[in-house]
Amino acid sequence: MGDLAEVQPKKAFGWAARDTSGVLSPFTFSRRATGEKDVSFKVLYCGGFSRKAFWKLKWFLIFIVCRATGEKDVSFKVLYCGICHSDFHMLKNDWGTSTYPLVPGHEIVGVVTEIGSKVENFKVGDKVGVGCMVGSCHSCDNCADNLENYCPKMILTYGAKDLDGTTTYGGYSDIMVADEHFIVRIPDNLPLDVGAPLLCAGITVYSPLKYYGLDKPGMHVGVVGLGGLGHVAVKFAKAMGVKVTVISTSPNKKKEAIEHLGADSFLVSRNQDELQAATSTMDGIIDTVSAPHALPPLIALLKTNGKLVLIGGLEKPLELPVFPLLMGRKIVGGSLIGGMKETQEMINFAAKHNIAADIEVIPIDYVNTAMKRLLKTDVRYRFVIDIGNTMKSTS
Amino acid sequence: MGDLAEVQPKKAFGWAARDTSGVLSPFTFSRRATGEKDVSFKVLYCGGFSRKAFWKLKWFLIFIVCRATGEKDVSFKVLYCGICHSDFHMLKNDWGTSTYPLVPGHEIVGVVTEIGSKVENFKVGDKVGVGCMVGSCHSCDNCADNLENYCPKMILTYGAKDLDGTTTYGGYSDIMVADEHFIVRIPDNLPLDVGAPLLCAGITVYSPLKYYGLDKPGMHVGVVGLGGLGHVAVKFAKAMGVKVTVISTSPNKKKEAIEHLGADSFLVSRNQDELQAATSTMDGIIDTVSAPHALPPLIALLKTNGKLVLIGGLEKPLELPVFPLLMGRKIVGGSLIGGMKETQEMINFAAKHNIAADIEVIPIDYVNTAMKRLLKTDVRYRFVIDIGNTMKSTS
Repeated sequence: MGDLAEVQPKKAFGWAARDTSGVLSPFTFSRRATGEKDVSFKVLYCGGFSRKAFWKLKWFLIFIVCRATGEKDVSFKVLYCGICHSDFHMLKNDWGTSTYPLVPGHEIVGVVTEIGSKVENFKVGDKVGVGCMVGSCHSCDNCADNLENYCPKMILTYGAKDLDGTTTYGGYSDIMVADEHFIVRIPDNLPLDVGAPLLCAGITVYSPLKYYGLDKPGMHVGVVGLGGLGHVAVKFAKAMGVKVTVISTSPNKKKEAIEHLGADSFLVSRNQDELQAATSTMDGIIDTVSAPHALPPLIALLKTNGKLVLIGGLEKPLELPVFPLLMGRKIVGGSLIGGMKETQEMINFAAKHNIAADIEVIPIDYVNTAMKRLLKTDVRYRFVIDIGNTMKSTS
Repeated sequence: MGDLAEVQPKKAFGWAARDTSGVLSPFTFSRRATGEKDVSFKVLYCGGFSRKAFWKLKWFLIFIVCRATGEKDVSFKVLYCGICHSDFHMLKNDWGTSTYPLVPGHEIVGVVTEIGSKVENFKVGDKVGVGCMVGSCHSCDNCADNLENYCPKMILTYGAKDLDGTTTYGGYSDIMVADEHFIVRIPDNLPLDVGAPLLCAGITVYSPLKYYGLDKPGMHVGVVGLGGLGHVAVKFAKAMGVKVTVISTSPNKKKEAIEHLGADSFLVSRNQDELQAATSTMDGIIDTVSAPHALPPLIALLKTNGKLVLIGGLEKPLELPVFPLLMGRKIVGGSLIGGMKETQEMINFAAKHNIAADIEVIPIDYVNTAMKRLLKTDVRYRFVIDIGNTMKSTS
């Protein structure tokens, strides 16, 4: 005990990993309350200070509480939460940044149950979601440009330090509380279960398609890897009017890619003849692969001025051939989720064009099995936990 | 004999390497004539065909001759030719594409002596130049976009196959002949000797500054490496109103970079404290280094959306860290010289802003010594051969 998170007013229940085994199990914790300044302040008050020091501390705490917990917060009952591949890495501390207990989940959707006194854009009963972040500094150039995702002080939805010093907990839990700035409205015609993965996977592919100018009708875009990210990349690109070629190591995904997802063509990345025939035909490539792989064959597929965009979280460096970049003024770039304004735009676009993730809905007590299957890419294409119906507190 | 190049009508003299030793020595050869279709055609006519076959061949040859040699050609007396670092690589066949005898030189300036009957933009006496290319297909998308430099059939100024099957010879020679499309006009106020290196080094840095949007006043651009390319990159960027930081391994170049070239600041690339202090401050970096080097420290200097542009001809792949690209939506891109329209724009910009290469003028018989000094980067910053006064035929 002693962690501020555990003495917050809102009782919460979820599943957490306790160590790098990554095994998830039931976990009782707490979240901050929505509401008025004073309500939150009372929770933080404690004795043992001189009168003068107390008053100084009081105003400091009021400041923190207002920023972190108070009037601008939205609380919602979580109904579904997608399982992102990065959840697996975080559970295992693969990136060296994890702290335990760790409640994963950043593809979170549900229905608003409470709002703070100064919330402007949401009301009780609204369908909403939270993606990969719950805070940023609101004062840097990136925040000013609606790129909170690149703010140096961006606060991740789980496993990060929040403004009040507590640890953030993700969506494998019954309730969620976040500042309304980081809440996305889910349009009525977008079902919550298939919409949940868009809050990470969707924006992760939508943002680079837009930023790198690969959203123009008639363009030709490759999508490398047909997993959680790749399958929605195909759907978004097609909805933008782009010709899409899926590039995959697995020939047996061809039928699925073309007939089910609507891709225009399919390249087996180990087939030299197919690669050769497609040389210099693509305006851009969205590369979703998070395992080491060769870039030269992909760069060769690009036209002059072509753009290879990496969005997979690769830990080890890749080999970058320089001459092929020079010869066609090509670029290799990166992209990481998207800002809040663009995330709302993406969700609205998805709703308008009937874009949904292909999912397998699972109960929470299947989550450890799901992680094992995820590791074998044995899912088409995203697990979504049915939190609303299966997350039951044992306390 | 037997090479068409050696039976062309215009006698030429230059210095050539005969093998991968790269040693240059006097070389007599020939170039095609400017003029009318018929003049050139006569040269190519030969017997031994049936009457029918002959007529077919005649029209074919007329087509080739018109494209390659005839009416649109400009011939000029070469006065100066810069020594580019790539000349050294080509002399040694470092890139595996060299053929011998090899007459290098693609920073060529001089005065027009003859024009073909359909030349529209030049007249005898004009000051002109030829850069890295003398031909392209004129029918692909790149050519249509004024990007002949990325045309798959682009013909290099030396060591390449021309349209008529002859080998192209560069500017270490007394005369030059090229289609007027690939001739650049040198404005009167740009001295020919200091202007010559701009035809390769100048456009190589100008084009990426423009294409990657690093030409906006108030931006902050890094220039890695202070050699033939780097020193003109500083001058162009400064003329564009950009804040320039030179990044170099040599602390002793600081005074030169700031006081002589006008850079705003200087970073020693091995000084961790200096690098740390400059983290996330640059909109872009022009990286001129053609030796293996680490990209992560450079990527760290970039702001969100920052662009690291490689223009050095690196043979071996570099290690590309992926997370740093994702975290700031950064890119690593390439650029290779520029199209003819942009090359003329660059030369005009240089003349307007008094941008000139810093050069050391040498006689042709010093060229082998110059190559040795080039290898040690013992030149500030470009050797330029005084062809007009020192290239004398021994025949």
